[in-house]
Amino acid sequence: MLTSENLLPALRWMRGYDSETFSSDLIAAIIVTIMLIPQSLAYALLAGLPAEVGLYASILPLAVYALFGSSSTLSVGPVAIASLMTAAAVGEVAAAGTVSATAAAVTLAALSGIMLAAFGFLRLGFLANFLSHTVVSAFITASALIIALSQLRHILGIQAGGDTLGELLHSLWVNLAQVSGMTFAIGGGVIVFLLLVRAQGVRALSAVGLSRYSAQLITKIAPVLAVIATIAVTANFNLEEAGVAVVGKIPTGLPALALPDFSLALIEALWLPALLISIIGYVESVSVGRTLGGKRQERIDADQELIGLGTANLASAFSGGLPVTGGFSRSVVNFDAGAVTQAASLMTAVFIAVVTLFLTPLLYALPKATLAATIIVAVIALVDFSVIRSTWKVSKGDTAAVLVTMLITLGFGVEAGVSCGILVSISLHLYRTSKPHIAEVGLISGTEHFRNARRYQVERHPKILTLRVDESLFFANAAYLEERIYSAVYENDQIAQVILMCTAVNEIDYTALETLEAVNLRLKQQGITLNLSEVKGPVMDMLNRTDFFAHLSGDVFLSQFDAFSTLSKRLG
Amino acid sequence: MLTSENLLPALRWMRGYDSETFSSDLIAAIIVTIMLIPQSLAYALLAGLPAEVGLYASILPLAVYALFGSSSTLSVGPVAIASLMTAAAVGEVAAAGTVSATAAAVTLAALSGIMLAAFGFLRLGFLANFLSHTVVSAFITASALIIALSQLRHILGIQAGGDTLGELLHSLWVNLAQVSGMTFAIGGGVIVFLLLVRAQGVRALSAVGLSRYSAQLITKIAPVLAVIATIAVTANFNLEEAGVAVVGKIPTGLPALALPDFSLALIEALWLPALLISIIGYVESVSVGRTLGGKRQERIDADQELIGLGTANLASAFSGGLPVTGGFSRSVVNFDAGAVTQAASLMTAVFIAVVTLFLTPLLYALPKATLAATIIVAVIALVDFSVIRSTWKVSKGDTAAVLVTMLITLGFGVEAGVSCGILVSISLHLYRTSKPHIAEVGLISGTEHFRNARRYQVERHPKILTLRVDESLFFANAAYLEERIYSAVYENDQIAQVILMCTAVNEIDYTALETLEAVNLRLKQQGITLNLSEVKGPVMDMLNRTDFFAHLSGDVFLSQFDAFSTLSKRLG
Repeated sequence: MLTSENLLPALRWMRGYDSETFSSDLIAAIIVTIMLIPQSLAYALLAGLPAEVGLYASILPLAVYALFGSSSTLSVGPVAIASLMTAAAVGEVAAAGTVSATAAAVTLAALSGIMLAAFGFLRLGFLANFLSHTVVSAFITASALIIALSQLRHILGIQAGGDTLGELLHSLWVNLAQVSGMTFAIGGGVIVFLLLVRAQGVRALSAVGLSRYSAQLITKIAPVLAVIATIAVTANFNLEEAGVAVVGKIPTGLPALALPDFSLALIEALWLPALLISIIGYVESVSVGRTLGGKRQERIDADQELIGLGTANLASAFSGGLPVTGGFSRSVVNFDAGAVTQAASLMTAVFIAVVTLFLTPLLYALPKATLAATIIVAVIALVDFSVIRSTWKVSKGDTAAVLVTMLITLGFGVEAGVSCGILVSISLHLYRTSKPHIAEVGLISGTEHFRNARRYQVERHPKILTLRVDESLFFANAAYLEERIYSAVYENDQIAQVILMCTAVNEIDYTALETLEAVNLRLKQQGITLNLSEVKGPVMDMLNRTDFFAHLSGDVFLSQFDAFSTLSKRLG
Repeated sequence: MLTSENLLPALRWMRGYDSETFSSDLIAAIIVTIMLIPQSLAYALLAGLPAEVGLYASILPLAVYALFGSSSTLSVGPVAIASLMTAAAVGEVAAAGTVSATAAAVTLAALSGIMLAAFGFLRLGFLANFLSHTVVSAFITASALIIALSQLRHILGIQAGGDTLGELLHSLWVNLAQVSGMTFAIGGGVIVFLLLVRAQGVRALSAVGLSRYSAQLITKIAPVLAVIATIAVTANFNLEEAGVAVVGKIPTGLPALALPDFSLALIEALWLPALLISIIGYVESVSVGRTLGGKRQERIDADQELIGLGTANLASAFSGGLPVTGGFSRSVVNFDAGAVTQAASLMTAVFIAVVTLFLTPLLYALPKATLAATIIVAVIALVDFSVIRSTWKVSKGDTAAVLVTMLITLGFGVEAGVSCGILVSISLHLYRTSKPHIAEVGLISGTEHFRNARRYQVERHPKILTLRVDESLFFANAAYLEERIYSAVYENDQIAQVILMCTAVNEIDYTALETLEAVNLRLKQQGITLNLSEVKGPVMDMLNRTDFFAHLSGDVFLSQFDAFSTLSKRLG
């Protein structure tokens, strides 16, 4: 049903918004803003883009998601995996030299936004269910490793690059001699600091009297402390001249709204990466949204979520940003800091805009090593090889899927990794749904119930074969049903009547209808009659529109009991 | 089970091969050979290759399929659709100028052979079921139109080309002024002759006393009469000088066995077309094999068929041929002419080899227009727009799939068409399997049976929710089960016990296990207990290997009746 709330989900929380909710949202917005400043810069760096692109992607997209998204606490913006995928896609285009990396990233965000919004309007959100969560987590583990390795060059202060494990290791190895000691001191120091905070921060802060809750929030904004400290040190001792790479001049002011570059060549080069980023970004977003929603009995509408993310990406593109998605860490901080509605994200957007307007000169001396360190510490938390052992106990097929996805991602890069993950997931699904549920049934003595002959003591007539079809008939199972009937008839030459019990057949597609006609014809040639029982109303209506019944050798019975008893009597 | 017959299915018919079978096979081989000579040349022409390539593809591949294939009457060789796809793939590579069209076709056959054989060894034959027959026939109709249009240039004697409906029509239109009258007289004459034979041939031959059966066979070799007549006319009146394009000099002698060109650039350009040709060729082959097999109670083994086709394509590649597959018309002629075993194909291969060795000089003056005419008449029989109306009565989704596939094929060419057909089929499958079978059940009074509460009068306890899961639990349905439980609990706050009745759960994958753990935890937080009933042995074993039962809030019951009565008593 189309209501104004469907078009603009924000109307739900805007009504009855009060001052108490406002102060909760305000506090969350302040904390999230503090956390987002280094994160936005870092993910722009990871994507191989100028720092301001990360800030731009954290303004309008947040505001637009706040209006169109279905989660009340999800926070969108640049995230690690999508930024890595952006780097891979943009790198190829920018190397060709026709457009700048930023222009390519903007087009990528626009294409991704169009795709996501279109999927939402087409109500294709259900497709996300066909991507195995296990396969996605394998992909994330491998990508996190690649991200961490790709950032090592900033920690070491060397030139290195690559999209795969092999390329990265090789490139780091051959350039190792150029390590900048000062850069390594800063980057290594920040890593150690952040790891210490993660391991001991909450305990230490609790020991000095803070509540566990406040302590947890404060540890989340530790990266900002590292940013402030390393800016101070670098500026004070003029470390830039000593070889420490810094973020440098970030343009002041809000992004200019502009149309992305939609040249055909660029679209041809970027549509596939955009699709892959959309899929992974969407799946990640929905999973974060559902996790948070679960804690508040809040439903995530899969299709609305596509529209929310799609419009957010379009907003990012029109304001010079990179592809965005719902991030886990930022959303959890938002939730834990007490955000009640998307007003928190609206306020965050305003705060980031203020930072972009006035505070970017302060970031000049921020070492890239600091940003790289925050990325490395963030992504190593995503690395989880235990899934290999855990899946082994449950399903060897899952373990194989996990290993294949990890190895392809590490060996051939993120785009190959996602593609492989999607193929593996769909193949697993096809394999698991390849054997339809078709059971031979018989009568439970003294009742009118028919049950699976393999699992119950049932009565059968030697000349009647009854198959119960437990799902709708369509192309993917029609051939199987055909084989099943032929082999049953082939093994038992007494059979004179076949009954298809259609209790669970809600639909028959054209291929299945053709198959039924072929089965009917072939059985007739062998002197065997085909009957149907318990056919549902809509299926009967459809069959009546065709000439199926004109050829059907047998009858259609309302109930299976009627079919069985009538045919038994006829056969004697 | 691995037996020598699995490795070499030909052993089945080789034992006990007798003289009676031999004479049946010999007659079939002679008739098929006569039919294959123009067909092989024509499909080479369609693929944009020298005529001899078509002959080469009709020698070794037949012999190899005879040894490794699973159908006793399928005849492999160049066919219309695969040749058109070869033309599209080869055209792009050859235009780049690095390799000849023939070398590209050979590599295409080799890649296709490797893929098919690999799929066979991996036992992936079942995947063919996921390609909707309806979508495939839509693709064939559109391709046949493109083939017919692409051959018009040979009938008109003009230069024209293109891969799509638009390109072909435009190219024919702008070159129309150069029509060669003599060529058109020959091509148009052959088309009229062949159409007349098809429409009236059987009746006319029956009228002069032939049996209907012989008459049908003779009409099938009508193209050879056209070949002989037009060669005679062209040679006699020296029409080549009057502008009639002829086949020209075909090298005499058997093909040299050689390794295909496996350069990385060529593989990169051809792997996707090779995959698409493999898929369509395989699906077509299996469908022909099953149709013929049905008439003789013969089973087609989907995986063995992959190996048969794969080795046939490898044989084609190593002997300088193009991609091959099981053809409908050639197989039907083989079957109708009385072939009993694959010995018929072995003999056909020998006969074609003899033709290639000695008779090719006779084909010098064969007009290309004659070959084009045989192609046009063959493929217009494949055009079937009635499927649009027939599917409309059965399933609107099918009609949409048919239209999309046809339009994409006509508008963007065969490769786009097949890709679209595969995507549409898999999307239809995913959509149709997206809602798993989960039913709320209750007790049928006076029995121990539990049935769907929507369809039966059943007893339920107000505080107990029982959901029967009718399929294995895995990633694609786990999220749906989760939603279903949460919404039931959300709508009815009396529920204190949830029972999952696992009668049909044969397997639980890792994602589903994680979901069950999350459901258990969340229900526990709401004071609701999760129980399982009727868990199958292997599933219990798997769960015991994990720590699932350590966390499960409720119990596992052997039978649903036990679960229901125990929990009812407990709740009072």
